[in-house]
Amino acid sequence: MPDSIPADSVGLVSPQSLHFDSPLTLESGRVLSQYDLVYETYGELNDRASNAILICHALSGDHHVAGYHTLEDKRPGWWDNIVGPGKAIDTNIFFVVCLNNLGGCSGSTGPTSINPETQRLYGPEFPIVTVTDWVNSQAILADKLNIQQWAAVVGGSLGGMQAMQWAIALPERLRHVLIIAAAPKLSAQNIAFNEVARTAIKSDPDFHEGYYASHQTIPRKGLGLARMLGHITYLSDEAMGAKFGRELRHGSLNYGYDVEFQIESYLRYQSESFVEHFDANTYLLMTKALDYFDPAKHFGNDLAKAVADIQAKCLVLSFTTDWRFSPERSHEIVNALLSANKQVTYAEIEATQGHDAFLLPIERYHQILTAYLQGIAKEVRSV
Amino acid sequence: MPDSIPADSVGLVSPQSLHFDSPLTLESGRVLSQYDLVYETYGELNDRASNAILICHALSGDHHVAGYHTLEDKRPGWWDNIVGPGKAIDTNIFFVVCLNNLGGCSGSTGPTSINPETQRLYGPEFPIVTVTDWVNSQAILADKLNIQQWAAVVGGSLGGMQAMQWAIALPERLRHVLIIAAAPKLSAQNIAFNEVARTAIKSDPDFHEGYYASHQTIPRKGLGLARMLGHITYLSDEAMGAKFGRELRHGSLNYGYDVEFQIESYLRYQSESFVEHFDANTYLLMTKALDYFDPAKHFGNDLAKAVADIQAKCLVLSFTTDWRFSPERSHEIVNALLSANKQVTYAEIEATQGHDAFLLPIERYHQILTAYLQGIAKEVRSV
Repeated sequence: MPDSIPADSVGLVSPQSLHFDSPLTLESGRVLSQYDLVYETYGELNDRASNAILICHALSGDHHVAGYHTLEDKRPGWWDNIVGPGKAIDTNIFFVVCLNNLGGCSGSTGPTSINPETQRLYGPEFPIVTVTDWVNSQAILADKLNIQQWAAVVGGSLGGMQAMQWAIALPERLRHVLIIAAAPKLSAQNIAFNEVARTAIKSDPDFHEGYYASHQTIPRKGLGLARMLGHITYLSDEAMGAKFGRELRHGSLNYGYDVEFQIESYLRYQSESFVEHFDANTYLLMTKALDYFDPAKHFGNDLAKAVADIQAKCLVLSFTTDWRFSPERSHEIVNALLSANKQVTYAEIEATQGHDAFLLPIERYHQILTAYLQGIAKEVRSV
Repeated sequence: MPDSIPADSVGLVSPQSLHFDSPLTLESGRVLSQYDLVYETYGELNDRASNAILICHALSGDHHVAGYHTLEDKRPGWWDNIVGPGKAIDTNIFFVVCLNNLGGCSGSTGPTSINPETQRLYGPEFPIVTVTDWVNSQAILADKLNIQQWAAVVGGSLGGMQAMQWAIALPERLRHVLIIAAAPKLSAQNIAFNEVARTAIKSDPDFHEGYYASHQTIPRKGLGLARMLGHITYLSDEAMGAKFGRELRHGSLNYGYDVEFQIESYLRYQSESFVEHFDANTYLLMTKALDYFDPAKHFGNDLAKAVADIQAKCLVLSFTTDWRFSPERSHEIVNALLSANKQVTYAEIEATQGHDAFLLPIERYHQILTAYLQGIAKEVRSV
């Protein structure tokens, strides 16, 4: 619980929900006849609806970006250090929107929702959704909120892929795109890590082919393993070394298979807390959305062609020790944008924290974001 | 099956076994009252026993380094491209020894052996063994083979750690040490990967706390996951990309959870074949030996002090795209050796294959090994 809500917080916030009953045809060909989207907003939409910023969440994120749901909350939203009054994404200036993606497990329709056609949980029957599907559903939400054009669409990691897809697929609907710690597609190694995570979940006997809810259980061990593995790829070797080194949990070696090093204890704790609030079917689905993202695929694997229609100005950011989506992956994006004569600003930020850096209050990172967003704010006043 | 045994092969070979009934006290304090060591030898020991080379195996290796056990064997030993007549480790010149390490599952006493005190399988009751324990048992085997001093002790990865430990702990018993693709200790990230692998094995319901044999089962899924994960760390992102890219298994996306990309298919196949011949308790034990290796620990974390007594000449090799034990980790070894005024040759070999490179026929690598071993051969003639 925060002793008191900090002055630069958006404060107490509540999620909102909208029901959509126009069918949504997914990239797979399957159709969601109706669905709900849960979202939060911070700040106020101006009269011309020119100050709206969409934040897209990553694999395990949700719509709760900033502020607190209750005074008892131990922690604020996942990007509270970026979003708030006077912060980089300044809610005194911008109207910020973030939704829980379709297929998520935090309120929007997904595997943990009731399928209206069967009156049972979707579970593993929820269709696989893609980054394109998310962008389409986000655009439908934007319509409902009367936002014709975003001042910016912003995202890190899988969120950055959504931001990129917005700029590619709906070029007139955003003026800026901020693509942070992302990649234009997964590498074979990225896919391999996802496949190990999926195999861990699916081979947990409590998975029951995805119907664990009707067995009153959850695949704790499999999902926990997936999360442990995820954590390794989110942190740099350097950050892990600095944080845990080879420090022993109990001072001396026990020559057994209990927790020995602090890093083991950390991973176990992280995975145990994660499995209590995240849905395994959603985790599977999110990793598939990552695997499938490949905007150049429809353009003969030429990323420059894929981004040819982009109208938004682009900010691309990467972090030096990120080995999940390394700076080289951002270079691919930047090079394609440059080849296509797009306006792009790129910064590679020195950071020891690996992929996780995009979530953390790193001074240079926040300076760059603040400066860039101030430029957008100026435009907002003149739009 | 080889159509015929190649001319530069050591040919048909047979493992040998020795029984030891002098108790061996392990680093953990536990005692093995008796044990067997299985080993192979190639070439002939000369009269002065000055031409013997010990090869130490890595995590999933064994004593079968070169040649074929039968004419039906599909593949030769694991380092057949290095060891044979006229090869880098030339069996026309050297007498080569490799044993299955204690705790292994290929014939030496380990979890799959009968505990003479209980007449039941050791299973999870087999004590945790360390690199130091292995070196001690290897020295006992050397005594039995009348090898007072090795011309060289050679190893890659975990094998390189054993070679390093030989040079540190028994400095008079080797003239050269070849430390390939190794590290002076695991990083927190290395330990984290091991912990995920162990958790996968231990949380498989077929593990039965390690007593799977008495349940007539093996923890296939957990061990398979551990192996899949291992494979990712053995290959470079580059090598995976070159080998698999994002190639689809069935030509088009299936929007489901079956195998989609070639890399997924490869990992599944690799893990399925591995679990049929490797023991899960041994896998756990090997990863612990890796975690525990830290020769500087007893010297105030000063590696230069740890290597101060080394008498062997040292060759240290690393591979550019190895991210499991990167060239930087070899630099740590080299810098410590230089600080301690040891004679050390170092080469960082351009290779796209990642950690696996140490097992592969890479021209520059084999040239360097060949040249270095020819130097040792000259010394052998003059010893």
